Amino acid sequence: MAAVTMYGFWRSLAAHRVRVALHLKGIDFEEIPVDILSGAQHSADYDKINAEHVLPTVMHDGVTLFQSMAILEYLDETFPEPALMPKSAADRAYVRSVALVTVADSHPLVVPRVRKHLGATFGADEAAINAWGRHWNTEGLATFEKLFSRRPPAPFIAGAQPTIADICFGSHVAGSGFFKSPLEQFPLCKALADRLAAHPAFAAAHPLKQPGAPAM
Amino acid sequence: MAAVTMYGFWRSLAAHRVRVALHLKGIDFEEIPVDILSGAQHSADYDKINAEHVLPTVMHDGVTLFQSMAILEYLDETFPEPALMPKSAADRAYVRSVALVTVADSHPLVVPRVRKHLGATFGADEAAINAWGRHWNTEGLATFEKLFSRRPPAPFIAGAQPTIADICFGSHVAGSGFFKSPLEQFPLCKALADRLAAHPAFAAAHPLKQPGAPAM
Repeated sequence: MAAVTMYGFWRSLAAHRVRVALHLKGIDFEEIPVDILSGAQHSADYDKINAEHVLPTVMHDGVTLFQSMAILEYLDETFPEPALMPKSAADRAYVRSVALVTVADSHPLVVPRVRKHLGATFGADEAAINAWGRHWNTEGLATFEKLFSRRPPAPFIAGAQPTIADICFGSHVAGSGFFKSPLEQFPLCKALADRLAAHPAFAAAHPLKQPGAPAM
Repeated sequence: MAAVTMYGFWRSLAAHRVRVALHLKGIDFEEIPVDILSGAQHSADYDKINAEHVLPTVMHDGVTLFQSMAILEYLDETFPEPALMPKSAADRAYVRSVALVTVADSHPLVVPRVRKHLGATFGADEAAINAWGRHWNTEGLATFEKLFSRRPPAPFIAGAQPTIADICFGSHVAGSGFFKSPLEQFPLCKALADRLAAHPAFAAAHPLKQPGAPAM
């Protein structure tokens, strides 16, 4: 049996974050797909393990974990090597802050339940919903670009090794692909995205390389 | 000079979280208001300290901090007593997960820039925007209620002392007031909200007790 079980899905950007961390730490894991595009996250079985009906859920050592950012911190506390957080309080805050630009500001605006509610409430069609997603993803890129101009990645966001910030930024850029955001207009973001894409853990965990994903 | 300076505002639920933590830890702080309802967060001066143009920003010991969740963790690492996080990795994950139900799922949907974009994009009027806010705040309450039924607060979310989870839940409930969400339909949430309201640190930090707030 694998050390960790993750309920995930190719398209879930939050599951993507956890998958990258599992690869970075070399943790043996099994991924069980929950098709969030068809609403499988609302089944009675999944409700028992995830009160919010969102992805991912992770099981480890008898503990059930939800919320990607909390799972990333748990994995780093439980499987310390390689560390995904710096040592100083100031650097740890910086890593968490940069991560939260997407986890707590951009990404929550584009998840399935919000896209669905835009349609139900404002009659938004697919084009309007995609434009909404592109808008917030692009706003996130603009914030990242400004942050990186003030503290350039060297080569990763907090220094020599990838951290939780890089993982979350990587999930944001995967979203840029889904929403066709103009990533090339943000050169510091583009350069970091290319660096992450070349990293084996990020490459292996990419949404479009998971079972069920459309052909690239 | 105060140990900590916070750029905040009475109405900001994210600033509210940090203000509660400062009160809980008895940290001497100064709060500088940035009127997010009139757009003051987009000034050139504020841009220099907050690339995202959001509240709060905290300055401590030469470090500039943003994103409320990252600030809460920083304060807990830097001013350890009383602790706002439990000791075991599993409990720490639970606290972060519960906090993120509002920090990363409900609250991002109702901040000023989103309310404004709903108006600009879908022609949403004030009533529609308030209904949007109430919808997502109520969804958050429903998730909290389910979580609390599975692991009852005793008396706080992770046990005897308030943690980051209680702080973030408290900010959610302050939002329930703003949006007139049916808090009384969620008895476990209501009971915990009443318990927090009676706590001196939560009471002192309440949005409606800050300078500039409308009369209660």
